[in-house]
Amino acid sequence: MKRLLAALLLTTLPLAAPAQEVVATGDLGLVVERASGSLLLVDRSDRAALARIEGLGDLSHATLTYSPDERFAYVFGRDGGLTKVDLTTRAIVARTVQAGNSIGGAISDDGRLVAVSNYEPGGVKVFDADTLALLADIPAAGKTIGLVDLPGRRFAWAVWDTGEVFLGDFAGADPVVTMIGNAGANPFDAVLAEDAHTYLVGLFGEKGVAAYDLWSPGAPPQKFLTDYGRTGEDMPVYKMPHLQGWAFTQGQFALPAVGRHEVLWVDSASREQVAATPVHGQPVFIIAQPASPYVWVNFATPLNDTVQVVDSRSHQVVATLTPGKAVLHMEFAPRGAEVWISSRDDNRVLIYDTRTREKVAEIEAAAPSGIFFTARAHRTGL
Amino acid sequence: MKRLLAALLLTTLPLAAPAQEVVATGDLGLVVERASGSLLLVDRSDRAALARIEGLGDLSHATLTYSPDERFAYVFGRDGGLTKVDLTTRAIVARTVQAGNSIGGAISDDGRLVAVSNYEPGGVKVFDADTLALLADIPAAGKTIGLVDLPGRRFAWAVWDTGEVFLGDFAGADPVVTMIGNAGANPFDAVLAEDAHTYLVGLFGEKGVAAYDLWSPGAPPQKFLTDYGRTGEDMPVYKMPHLQGWAFTQGQFALPAVGRHEVLWVDSASREQVAATPVHGQPVFIIAQPASPYVWVNFATPLNDTVQVVDSRSHQVVATLTPGKAVLHMEFAPRGAEVWISSRDDNRVLIYDTRTREKVAEIEAAAPSGIFFTARAHRTGL
Repeated sequence: MKRLLAALLLTTLPLAAPAQEVVATGDLGLVVERASGSLLLVDRSDRAALARIEGLGDLSHATLTYSPDERFAYVFGRDGGLTKVDLTTRAIVARTVQAGNSIGGAISDDGRLVAVSNYEPGGVKVFDADTLALLADIPAAGKTIGLVDLPGRRFAWAVWDTGEVFLGDFAGADPVVTMIGNAGANPFDAVLAEDAHTYLVGLFGEKGVAAYDLWSPGAPPQKFLTDYGRTGEDMPVYKMPHLQGWAFTQGQFALPAVGRHEVLWVDSASREQVAATPVHGQPVFIIAQPASPYVWVNFATPLNDTVQVVDSRSHQVVATLTPGKAVLHMEFAPRGAEVWISSRDDNRVLIYDTRTREKVAEIEAAAPSGIFFTARAHRTGL
Repeated sequence: MKRLLAALLLTTLPLAAPAQEVVATGDLGLVVERASGSLLLVDRSDRAALARIEGLGDLSHATLTYSPDERFAYVFGRDGGLTKVDLTTRAIVARTVQAGNSIGGAISDDGRLVAVSNYEPGGVKVFDADTLALLADIPAAGKTIGLVDLPGRRFAWAVWDTGEVFLGDFAGADPVVTMIGNAGANPFDAVLAEDAHTYLVGLFGEKGVAAYDLWSPGAPPQKFLTDYGRTGEDMPVYKMPHLQGWAFTQGQFALPAVGRHEVLWVDSASREQVAATPVHGQPVFIIAQPASPYVWVNFATPLNDTVQVVDSRSHQVVATLTPGKAVLHMEFAPRGAEVWISSRDDNRVLIYDTRTREKVAEIEAAAPSGIFFTARAHRTGL
């Protein structure tokens, strides 16, 4: 049935649009359709699907980023494919299979460079954003994870196998790559927080989180939450909650407990845990609703039909929704009016009004996972 | 000479572009040319002027806001004119002179409503963002100031003559306008801070700032900085530094001292002043450089040829630049790589790299004042 619906969807949307139409892309987005290797182009204002773009390879766990003009998307596939998509013509304009297994990427603050972090082989490759020509190939002694863009045409990343964290500076003619301190055993993900001030690296091989003060070059990393993370020798890495699922709100981090049905609250200044909220399941993504005191939480299988809303002031659950089967991702309109929720096993994207917390529309999509609005083009560290 | 240059500029740029070109607007912006009542359309990526749009009336102190798709600008002129401009066709598509003297406006979070705050007559008018048809006319017992958009199709504003602060809810069929407490004598400006949590209202008729907790409906306003503001009976209101010039960075507000050559630093949690930085002149705008510890400051005439950069950690001036004559405004690229500075009396917009703090380009403009990049479409409270 799921396959049938996906096949049906694939035939009913236009595959390309005439370029002469005026297309303003500020309220568009792309939904990853993981099973079919396609992207669904959506319009926030019209709450509608506009087109399907196919041929992107293996899109399981795929992420993407946007050019500063919000015209192009750079899609990082799990198969090492880097694909450039034009939202105005609704077509792939360049594609390169640049590694055997990649884990994500980022675009430089000036929009000129696209960097990809790879598992197989490890390392970081940097491409010209216009042409996807390879500009730099930075090897690493293992899998690279947690790649983020930093101001001044720089990127940061960590290496799973060695614990090393690197800062790559691509402002000059030749890249300058500096090791800025060892985070600890087996970093599994990293995230940029607090206005690009802090780079947080989560560890799999030991407990705790390593924090790098990027505004103070040379400052050694500081460990905190030293009881956080790893619960046993045999936990597979894909069961670790990703740090991209941390929310940052009002002087607090909200992060998923590991192996427990809790959201943990940490004071961002003291880095002490200040509260724990019992929730429906093992949290996966905890995402701050813009311009509000709320975070929205989804959960790992088999409890993934539910989304809960937690107030960052009281740390209490204030709403429990059951939007659909296999909720994989949530993306907010940039000013917070709506949240779009992907329900993979319902083949639907569900649109909720954040004020009433009621569903206002839904869009057919084939096994949707990540949802990415173009407003991301203007944010650092994604 | 200035007039001559302006006249020259007015003849050398295309006035409209064919609509069939693909135009991605995410990296565009508009520069207000106050003397000629025109807007200069600029491209951040190309560091270039694309077109001039004329016929906008009196643009002294003009501000503007953008539709969610970043295609349209809504320009609030001092003469009460509300003008809708299409960035893709580079033309005015609608214009209404809706009051005798207006002071600014905002667009609702869903992009459907444009609200304007007026001096003469006072009150707030709300227009359909598509057609500029009048939808609501909210009278007031005086001049309205400090109009901001809030999540959930709401706006907040204050009334100079009475001190009242209002919250207008336009989500339902009829507007619901609620007085949420008196701020004090003669509010002269207001600003939304901390992720739409706090509405700060500056006072002219007495000292201090009134803070409204918008996440706690019914909470009375709290006064702080009770030594701030008014220095004498006869200070004209136009000499008051505007609250739009406040920066919010890393748990602090940075605000201009009144009548003194200082930047004041206030802890956003305790609302106590924690530091004062001696600077070159009376600060006008204090703007946070995105993804950095820095704020950039410009100054009132006659010391307005200078811009200083202050570190929000040490509260020390770290750079003093002299970009040009009569620096009126600064606008950062949304991820902070560049700052664009308007130098009115040089008829130039100057582009500085924020990392080297060196000028990388300049653009001719006729007596430029405000600079507004389209990325503002995605931010609350502008």
